[in-house]
Amino acid sequence: MKTQVAIIGGGPSGLLLSQLLHTRGIDSIVLERQTKDYVLSRIRAGVLERGFVGLMREAGVAERLDAESYVHDGTLVSFGDTMFRVDFTKHAGHHVTVYGQTEVTRDLYAAREAANGKIEFNVEDVVINGADTDAPFVTYNVAGEERRIDCDYIAGCDGFHGVSRPTIPADVRKEYEKVYPFGWLGILSETPPVNHELIYSGSERGFALCSMRNENLSRYYIQCSLDDKPEDWSDEAFWEELKRRIPSEQADKLVTGPTIEKSIAPLRSFVTEPMRWGRLFLCGDAAHIVPPTGAKGLNTAASDIHYLYNGLRQFYEDGSPEGLDSYSEKALARVWKTERFSWWFSSLMHSFPDQTEFDLKMQIAEIEFLRTNEAAQKAMAENYVGLPY
Amino acid sequence: MKTQVAIIGGGPSGLLLSQLLHTRGIDSIVLERQTKDYVLSRIRAGVLERGFVGLMREAGVAERLDAESYVHDGTLVSFGDTMFRVDFTKHAGHHVTVYGQTEVTRDLYAAREAANGKIEFNVEDVVINGADTDAPFVTYNVAGEERRIDCDYIAGCDGFHGVSRPTIPADVRKEYEKVYPFGWLGILSETPPVNHELIYSGSERGFALCSMRNENLSRYYIQCSLDDKPEDWSDEAFWEELKRRIPSEQADKLVTGPTIEKSIAPLRSFVTEPMRWGRLFLCGDAAHIVPPTGAKGLNTAASDIHYLYNGLRQFYEDGSPEGLDSYSEKALARVWKTERFSWWFSSLMHSFPDQTEFDLKMQIAEIEFLRTNEAAQKAMAENYVGLPY
Repeated sequence: MKTQVAIIGGGPSGLLLSQLLHTRGIDSIVLERQTKDYVLSRIRAGVLERGFVGLMREAGVAERLDAESYVHDGTLVSFGDTMFRVDFTKHAGHHVTVYGQTEVTRDLYAAREAANGKIEFNVEDVVINGADTDAPFVTYNVAGEERRIDCDYIAGCDGFHGVSRPTIPADVRKEYEKVYPFGWLGILSETPPVNHELIYSGSERGFALCSMRNENLSRYYIQCSLDDKPEDWSDEAFWEELKRRIPSEQADKLVTGPTIEKSIAPLRSFVTEPMRWGRLFLCGDAAHIVPPTGAKGLNTAASDIHYLYNGLRQFYEDGSPEGLDSYSEKALARVWKTERFSWWFSSLMHSFPDQTEFDLKMQIAEIEFLRTNEAAQKAMAENYVGLPY
Repeated sequence: MKTQVAIIGGGPSGLLLSQLLHTRGIDSIVLERQTKDYVLSRIRAGVLERGFVGLMREAGVAERLDAESYVHDGTLVSFGDTMFRVDFTKHAGHHVTVYGQTEVTRDLYAAREAANGKIEFNVEDVVINGADTDAPFVTYNVAGEERRIDCDYIAGCDGFHGVSRPTIPADVRKEYEKVYPFGWLGILSETPPVNHELIYSGSERGFALCSMRNENLSRYYIQCSLDDKPEDWSDEAFWEELKRRIPSEQADKLVTGPTIEKSIAPLRSFVTEPMRWGRLFLCGDAAHIVPPTGAKGLNTAASDIHYLYNGLRQFYEDGSPEGLDSYSEKALARVWKTERFSWWFSSLMHSFPDQTEFDLKMQIAEIEFLRTNEAAQKAMAENYVGLPY
């Protein structure tokens, strides 16, 4: 097979890129290791920056998003019983949009299928060949049959554990990493959310996050030990611990119920440099990971897609390699800003096993500074709604 | 002897309190362990917040300060060769004032002497008695003679190693501390400063600070190991290392010369709570220490003096104990804000021995965020010029 852009990974980043290229008549093939049902069963973030929503509109797949999503004009931050609101619209002139990643992916699949876009599922043994030559190709197996795609460019949208990043020789890559000494235990529950807007709660017992998907679907998280297993936590124990970490006024009105999903995710900051090697471009989790505090994972993948899509467009429409040549530099400049924000917000809100009483006082003082200082709220709001591309 | 307020410590805090009380006809005696010459030989910070300058004016001792000090409308921050300015006046509506702590102390001594204020030097074996009773008194020795002062209140302005803090029983005190794994090697040099405004320089080799006292007196600092001794550093080695940490454009125009003072100071964050025990009130370094980055030590002492002076005034003029009763709470609320700022600015600018490459990237990203984000500059400027009392 031949295509212009081979896209490794059929998650939201790869699908969004494929759909955006399609609107410009640029051909692509998406390779996905799992089944479509598996991809759609992954529950991820649900807070979208304005830039992400803009790309969905540009790709012509925002109809349901625009109809069914929720506008959040601010968020709540608490420590103990002290709670305050950071107003995004007032401080940053924009809101964020709440719409689950699963829904984004579903809409993108629908659009790709409607356009007869090529997506190969259940691919195995993907190998990226000749990325540093003028004739790259990708080989893989489907149901025991070896296939090959010749292409101009390869987009590595296959996540942290994918094959794209390790395709770049180790002596060319420089990696930066921080592993946080805790995880997030997250649950989904068909209950009305305790609050329409998110509540980021610090406490001496650890972090908790109250978030929502819709009027009868809530998503809650609590910081947990990396040694914990989801099955260690009964629904009752989860709700009890959550109530102890959020302001008592919120705890009193929390509606609990059976959980319909329960999982633990580790927290990691990670960046690889550069994000381009020859004709291979890394996007999203393949190149960088942020801890989930502040919901920047999917949004930062989208900013990579923005730069790569525009670079490819410039190349195919104008014959200019300029956007592709500056891809790594431009994408990384924004990635590091987002890494900083996610690291700062995570460091601010979580209990660290080795933290001293002085460190705890600094967290409380910084939350108090955020509560009382307009400029600090503005700096946070500008990051939360998404820095400009 | 009898007085209304016994003040332990004849540094700038104790002298300022004594002089302020004098303007209201409230009597005090200052006890100083050292000689006046010794106190005046201590070289300390030289950046004064507007609140400090206001207190000096209120005390009637700002004539020389107003005539000879320098206005700084901003400061420079650099990492490597990237340098930018944070404009205080634009972002916070105020400037800071550069005037050495030694000069402040000299002016305060002159005022106390002109008013026949009582200051006892060379006092030994100071003991604060009955601070938790209605009849406190202070005993001490001067040249082998035991003396006693009966008083209404005691102000503990005797620094981190003074007797005031340990007078509060250990089970009443709660202490918070962070010791930083490096020191500051500071020099004075009779050379024109490399820049009129201060330059706070981060680098992969560690922190450096360029500051000035006047047009021909510069004060420079470099982050050093706690194992270093001042005599390990020749003048030449100091200048060479300083040049490697500041932007090359600044290094090229740096005027070097013999140093006339060279010393190493450790960096510490420390707070004790509460700041009042019975009739004893802790002020300044007796209650809290900040690392010197951002020059908050003397300024935070001054904010304590502001609260204590107004509490005493309210008591003696109106008979109300309200200001004294709320002293600890009010003073600590501002102390913790200043501790946060000093900790943040120190953490941002120094190399930490155990920092990872990711940590260094976060420092660089945060400096870059400060360089490019107005709200972040405003938050810094508001802290730098001094939060309101």
